[in-house]
Amino acid sequence: MDEGVDRISSKELSEIIGFSASQIRQDFNNFGEFGQQGYGYNVVDLHREISNIIGLNKKYHIALIGVGNFGTAVAKYSFKEMGFHIDALFDNNPEKVGQVLNGVEITDTNFLETYLSKHDIDIVAITTPSSVAQDLADRLVICGVKAIWNFAPVDLTVPDDVVVENVSLLDSLMTVSYLLNELKDATV
Amino acid sequence: MDEGVDRISSKELSEIIGFSASQIRQDFNNFGEFGQQGYGYNVVDLHREISNIIGLNKKYHIALIGVGNFGTAVAKYSFKEMGFHIDALFDNNPEKVGQVLNGVEITDTNFLETYLSKHDIDIVAITTPSSVAQDLADRLVICGVKAIWNFAPVDLTVPDDVVVENVSLLDSLMTVSYLLNELKDATV
Repeated sequence: MDEGVDRISSKELSEIIGFSASQIRQDFNNFGEFGQQGYGYNVVDLHREISNIIGLNKKYHIALIGVGNFGTAVAKYSFKEMGFHIDALFDNNPEKVGQVLNGVEITDTNFLETYLSKHDIDIVAITTPSSVAQDLADRLVICGVKAIWNFAPVDLTVPDDVVVENVSLLDSLMTVSYLLNELKDATV
Repeated sequence: MDEGVDRISSKELSEIIGFSASQIRQDFNNFGEFGQQGYGYNVVDLHREISNIIGLNKKYHIALIGVGNFGTAVAKYSFKEMGFHIDALFDNNPEKVGQVLNGVEITDTNFLETYLSKHDIDIVAITTPSSVAQDLADRLVICGVKAIWNFAPVDLTVPDDVVVENVSLLDSLMTVSYLLNELKDATV
């Protein structure tokens, strides 16, 4: 779209993305009819459709709990242009409370419930040690939070109507070792 | 295995993991014959087979470049018991060079090539700003590094025989928004 391309075929997309053209067509077909046989995809329409599927046509308000190394890295990340705004930061360390990070003041985690009752928060990031993550998840569920972005290496138990997305470094590292071994097998 | 369970059926695994029993059987079948019809899986065998597939039967040596918030968080993470050892840390900030993090001294990134020529490193983590990530990847490829664990939000270009595993916070956040919107559609 940025390059002024009007239409693109699944074959051209395949060359850019690295998945097969047939896989791309199949994936799109799961969400409806985006293209025309022999004509390709209208790039503007496709961009809008994909944005709608992912939900990027909205603004999301995020609160983050646990301003350690991970929390700080996440808080400094720029998600804003994609519609993700970090509105609030929480930590239980008195030395951190009151400090400002990326324009957001760190609040005592004791005030989590008070804050959530007064503000519309769509997603809460948990970047705390594992030991407190489930307790925090329970508190968030009671507050009506429907999406938890979990960086703590622990499986959170939540009701079916709450979404948990885990960022697992260990899973990612195991993917590296799996791919590395596949590569070695292929070159032996 | 920790609970002394000898055998487990795909149905029981399904109840623990949340994927369907048939999906679990199919996935295992892709890697060979692990179970017996009507008997289930031998837990010890299954653990060993999965470890072999993922490559957890070995020790991996990791070097990490970029000791900012992300790099520090990754360096402090405990992957050791799964066989992943962070042996070296690099940063180009003179104030960080010489500091010790989790028992590992931070080395100047200028010495990357020297270090890699003298030590067996299996995986290199890039936790630098995006602007320098491709340049570092190029240097790693020249040094013969075969696996890059990339935290910089940029698509690295590497030869086919080099594995890149991206940890993309934005991808993960878009998964949250997608799931959140699916949830809302389902409850309307």
